[in-house]
Amino acid sequence: MKRKEYETALEPMREELVAMARWVRVTGQRIVVLFEGRDTAGKGGAIRAVSEKLNPRQCHTVALGTPTEAEQGQWYFQRYAGHLPTAGEIVLFDRSWYNRAGVEKVMGFATDAQVNQFLDQVPVFEKMLVEDGILLFKYWLGADQERQEERLRERLDDPLKRWKLSPIDLAARGKYDAYTEAREEMLRRTHTDWAPWTLVDFNDQKQGRLTLVRDLLDRLPDTRCDPAEIDFPALGREPEAESYGVLKPIENYPIA
Amino acid sequence: MKRKEYETALEPMREELVAMARWVRVTGQRIVVLFEGRDTAGKGGAIRAVSEKLNPRQCHTVALGTPTEAEQGQWYFQRYAGHLPTAGEIVLFDRSWYNRAGVEKVMGFATDAQVNQFLDQVPVFEKMLVEDGILLFKYWLGADQERQEERLRERLDDPLKRWKLSPIDLAARGKYDAYTEAREEMLRRTHTDWAPWTLVDFNDQKQGRLTLVRDLLDRLPDTRCDPAEIDFPALGREPEAESYGVLKPIENYPIA
Amino acid sequence: MKRKEYETALEPMREELVAMARWVRVTGQRIVVLFEGRDTAGKGGAIRAVSEKLNPRQCHTVALGTPTEAEQGQWYFQRYAGHLPTAGEIVLFDRSWYNRAGVEKVMGFATDAQVNQFLDQVPVFEKMLVEDGILLFKYWLGADQERQEERLRERLDDPLKRWKLSPIDLAARGKYDAYTEAREEMLRRTHTDWAPWTLVDFNDQKQGRLTLVRDLLDRLPDTRCDPAEIDFPALGREPEAESYGVLKPIENYPIA
Amino acid sequence: MKRKEYETALEPMREELVAMARWVRVTGQRIVVLFEGRDTAGKGGAIRAVSEKLNPRQCHTVALGTPTEAEQGQWYFQRYAGHLPTAGEIVLFDRSWYNRAGVEKVMGFATDAQVNQFLDQVPVFEKMLVEDGILLFKYWLGADQERQEERLRERLDDPLKRWKLSPIDLAARGKYDAYTEAREEMLRRTHTDWAPWTLVDFNDQKQGRLTLVRDLLDRLPDTRCDPAEIDFPALGREPEAESYGVLKPIENYPIA
Repeated sequence: MKRKEYETALEPMREELVAMARWVRVTGQRIVVLFEGRDTAGKGGAIRAVSEKLNPRQCHTVALGTPTEAEQGQWYFQRYAGHLPTAGEIVLFDRSWYNRAGVEKVMGFATDAQVNQFLDQVPVFEKMLVEDGILLFKYWLGADQERQEERLRERLDDPLKRWKLSPIDLAARGKYDAYTEAREEMLRRTHTDWAPWTLVDFNDQKQGRLTLVRDLLDRLPDTRCDPAEIDFPALGREPEAESYGVLKPIENYPIA
Repeated sequence: MKRKEYETALEPMREELVAMARWVRVTGQRIVVLFEGRDTAGKGGAIRAVSEKLNPRQCHTVALGTPTEAEQGQWYFQRYAGHLPTAGEIVLFDRSWYNRAGVEKVMGFATDAQVNQFLDQVPVFEKMLVEDGILLFKYWLGADQERQEERLRERLDDPLKRWKLSPIDLAARGKYDAYTEAREEMLRRTHTDWAPWTLVDFNDQKQGRLTLVRDLLDRLPDTRCDPAEIDFPALGREPEAESYGVLKPIENYPIA
Repeated sequence: MKRKEYETALEPMREELVAMARWVRVTGQRIVVLFEGRDTAGKGGAIRAVSEKLNPRQCHTVALGTPTEAEQGQWYFQRYAGHLPTAGEIVLFDRSWYNRAGVEKVMGFATDAQVNQFLDQVPVFEKMLVEDGILLFKYWLGADQERQEERLRERLDDPLKRWKLSPIDLAARGKYDAYTEAREEMLRRTHTDWAPWTLVDFNDQKQGRLTLVRDLLDRLPDTRCDPAEIDFPALGREPEAESYGVLKPIENYPIA
Repeated sequence: MKRKEYETALEPMREELVAMARWVRVTGQRIVVLFEGRDTAGKGGAIRAVSEKLNPRQCHTVALGTPTEAEQGQWYFQRYAGHLPTAGEIVLFDRSWYNRAGVEKVMGFATDAQVNQFLDQVPVFEKMLVEDGILLFKYWLGADQERQEERLRERLDDPLKRWKLSPIDLAARGKYDAYTEAREEMLRRTHTDWAPWTLVDFNDQKQGRLTLVRDLLDRLPDTRCDPAEIDFPALGREPEAESYGVLKPIENYPIA
């Protein structure tokens, strides 16, 4: 998909997202969106498509690292629960509690018993959140292994993306099928009436983002909510120019 | 400045920023950058210019809201201190402890005695951080009142930016001169050898960003640090395509 | 009950508690004990009876204040979940999530719908914790209103206890029956196989403490766990006396 | 010193401590007390003597464990700063930032350069707190090595105290002199006009506690502050006895 097409299609959705955020604030809603999927599928880009025009004090992205030893000894959901939104907030999880059913299962960081118990508990945990009034959305971003390989190669070659190439990514290359299987098991046991999964094809990332954002907006109730009227009288004097005393600005970067 | 010129000039700096972040991680450095300046000067955009290609798990933006009652009763620097980086991290403060010398002073949220004590303590506090090995950079972004008015008006008219228009912004419109005075006093008392201020002209925001990023990179020591070699063998089999069982992806967003 | 009888009876239990804490640490168990009950029943004293000989770095008492506005907007269990123990820890809750079924219900701080939903969710929430391996114990401390009145009066008259007399205590005096009713409803809906309640008569607080501690110890599995052998050789020199240079100790408090 | 003498002498001080806490709350003061000293000197007991009759929601004891790796990479004072009191609170530090000048120095957990920088920064850091209005008190508890040996031996032999015997304690036995030297250096460089040290002889722990509490109370300004009048009308009905339905209390612990 071309950049321009993408921007043209996204632009009106951006306005809807901003209106949605206003509605969330004014009505005290809480929104949680989980972004899961293949390595390199494009979770980060999808999150940015949702959040980039929103107030960063209202819309938080949560991307937790490896649990500390203390966290490993806690109730599994504890460290995620600490990041759930308060009234008026939107929280986007860049990977989430589902780590246990994905990377932890496939890479052997959790035992079968732990994974199994997790899959039993998830519907219960999520039901509690939904009953509490949280609007919960779960997206899984898919891509063919060919795309994954291309994107890993790009991370290797592009100095701007090199940091994205983690040892886990590399170790996971050969486990595409195991991840598929793990995903199917996860869907089988955690796709519920109260917290359904939505799968989005991210073989074309721009199209995937548009698909996801459109779907998210469509799942929300009517979020229209006019902004408050603001009185903006004339300044009533000549605007001042900056005048520096103690210290001067540095030289501007020269335009070629 | 044209978008294209801007992108062309920024591109090589992005690579330098990414290399710098690698150096920070590998050598365990800590970087703190404060972004202060006029309302609407472009702090948010400048922060994004620095952070957008960096690992969000390494480079954190700290944009604190109004202090809670408990925080108001604490040592003034306490809530900021909690966000200082650990080894390997970069923290960008979108407004900072200097609130007390700016908005709190001008809008009367702090007493003269509090502002005065703050200005006395800042050089001492910052010296402790710098002696502890933190690399601290302080930027103040300036713009003429005419620009400020244009940008406030744009926030009013552009639905994507309306949320940026805070009551404080409006109340501050008439206090351009008071902010100038407050800035001069702040510079006089907190522009130190160990933690100097850098003023950047943000009348043209794109040029301002280039100026700021270039300056930041130039202030750092040699941050060259080659990425680790990564072995990326051939996959050794035909790549798999996604095959969905339990649930199918939703329809792609239609390209016009 | 006489102080002396009490001490004599408690002494061996103290050793059992210390042994239990060692077992918790060595085996990585997690223990949660909830202390609920009438105002003035003696929750604080019961908690001290359990914790006073334990390592304060291992055994934590959690006594949360009024929720902040941000906390009020969150999932109800969120702020409690943040205090659950990690492996090797013991957490004693001085009042707990059951606030919603007690004081919040009786004093009208929560709506009927909130209380009702809470009572539905508690068994589910507690089941998750228990399945996760947490050893959960719930005590409710009862006392006749006559005792309650005496103890409130004592708080009023004893300068050491005056701070314990909260406005809520006073407002709750007339609602003894409503608290009884609320407790019955709570027991009916949250006394489960996996997280049963234990009621203890605290009309005599010393006896109540003995009863509670004995019951808690009896509910635990065999916690015998010998302390590690420690080699404690002779010092091999004359012990030094303190010798002060820069500063001398202050005068000792004179013994009459 | 006899238990009885001790209790008799402490009793009136307890009332003064409670009155002091009321004054702290009503006037929004902040109090910080650091407890440092020899291993086994009796820091824990001294802290309990101060805190035992105070509201645990107002008076907090801070006993930090070994720093995590993230904390080790931070500004040294950062993790302590997070525990400083807000208005109306009292914080008792069971060991404090002075760890760096004591155990960390003697046991080699910090480099000479780190210790040296710490000793330079402490007076500056503490001055900031004091200027901010925090009432800061620093106690160092001394005891002869003979006492220390006895108490270590007691920890070994008494099952209730065994957990107190840390490997660090044992390793430190032979370093009594090194600790003395470290203390002298610490006093030389951190006993300032604005944050003076007070040394207390804890060869007799009960007497030491009385000495310390008396000194603390004497250092405070006039803290008289009458409690608010409370209206405590007659109940106006026969008090209810507990009547249990769903569940009965368990059997009382039998008094012999």
